[in-house]
Amino acid sequence: MTVIAPKALFFDVFGTLVDWRTSIARETRLILEPLGHRLDWEAFADAWRGEYQPGMEEVRTGRIPFSKLDVLHRRNLERFLPRMNVTGLSDEVLHNLNMAWHRLDAWPEVPAALTRLKAKFRIAPVSNGNISLMVDLARRNNLPWDAILGAEVAGDYKPKRQVYLAACAALDLPPEQCMMVAAHSSDLEAAATCGLRTGHIARPDEHGPGTGETGPSVPVDVAGSDLADLAGKLGV
Amino acid sequence: MTVIAPKALFFDVFGTLVDWRTSIARETRLILEPLGHRLDWEAFADAWRGEYQPGMEEVRTGRIPFSKLDVLHRRNLERFLPRMNVTGLSDEVLHNLNMAWHRLDAWPEVPAALTRLKAKFRIAPVSNGNISLMVDLARRNNLPWDAILGAEVAGDYKPKRQVYLAACAALDLPPEQCMMVAAHSSDLEAAATCGLRTGHIARPDEHGPGTGETGPSVPVDVAGSDLADLAGKLGV
Repeated sequence: MTVIAPKALFFDVFGTLVDWRTSIARETRLILEPLGHRLDWEAFADAWRGEYQPGMEEVRTGRIPFSKLDVLHRRNLERFLPRMNVTGLSDEVLHNLNMAWHRLDAWPEVPAALTRLKAKFRIAPVSNGNISLMVDLARRNNLPWDAILGAEVAGDYKPKRQVYLAACAALDLPPEQCMMVAAHSSDLEAAATCGLRTGHIARPDEHGPGTGETGPSVPVDVAGSDLADLAGKLGV
Repeated sequence: MTVIAPKALFFDVFGTLVDWRTSIARETRLILEPLGHRLDWEAFADAWRGEYQPGMEEVRTGRIPFSKLDVLHRRNLERFLPRMNVTGLSDEVLHNLNMAWHRLDAWPEVPAALTRLKAKFRIAPVSNGNISLMVDLARRNNLPWDAILGAEVAGDYKPKRQVYLAACAALDLPPEQCMMVAAHSSDLEAAATCGLRTGHIARPDEHGPGTGETGPSVPVDVAGSDLADLAGKLGV
């Protein structure tokens, strides 16, 4: 088999490039604590994220039409808040909470590593997050994307094949010239079945210390301890 | 009427931000002159551009399904080449000619002015060019887009309303918080009917010296002699 260097790198974002758990815990605390709520804020973040896959599954199965992740996040929020004994929030507060997903911080090495990678590869998020959310995270964290691809452009959610293939098509590249980069083996497995190359990043602390993937559980083309390490292995 | 400052600026690209005529003349000459063709290269560029609106009109009217501008450019190329007495080109040469649209140069003040504007506004191309074309122009000219919006994201061509409205929706902004910036009054007129604000840039030499719009022929919110002047008038 001839090794073809990828021309584009596609990135998962939540967990892979940004630390959603610490950021959501911080942002929701900033909003709810002044309103008198005392909660385990990491558990709050975990509970919200726990609704993530079931929410998208309603779209994937066709039960509801495609809806941006911001819309699903809001539905999910209102679904789990009663379980946290948080009730009676105004629409404004609910909106502000929902926009916490636009205020996530990147893992420390990410902005510089992406800038290095951009010199050699086209780079784009292929995330389930919507375009405006990706734009806000990029502006906040200086992520120098060439384009915002992913679920909203494809009209469906990963790991549906259409999301990966629409990203390749948008850049006019065959799948074998594109590499999906993620901290989640399931994402990479799905990308590989579409013909994309795959790169894994370890994020051992994604759901709290010692909870994330320290390495891929599926065959991948390259694996790094973080994005800077992966960039080095990709020759930049 | 309350004046609402726009949160996003949307940009026409061909003619407004990049000098397609000089660039296409240069790039096509570089390819065809070594093959023995002696042509008026500006006329060659004009002839190709002359097929632009008729080509898109086939999509706008529904006569053909949405096709990327790269595809239309190729159809248009093969349509006018015989008129220029250029025949017998290989598929590789035709492809290389077609990709000349990915190698256009920005007007000189554009990269720095866009960088200034990005500090205050979300910025995105809302062009009829496809995503990969916009990515290549951005990489070539250092255009620091927040996202690539426009025809391919909307699935239709300007001045159809859907293109402007899809761009606003992608950023979760109502039209009145978005401003279309273009050197073509017809583009701005269409954007205004969708509720967007409008900014005009003079490009008097777009189709050759003294051929372009020196000012808007429709009411606009702001007009500049170039993008740097417009940026100043938008307070950056």
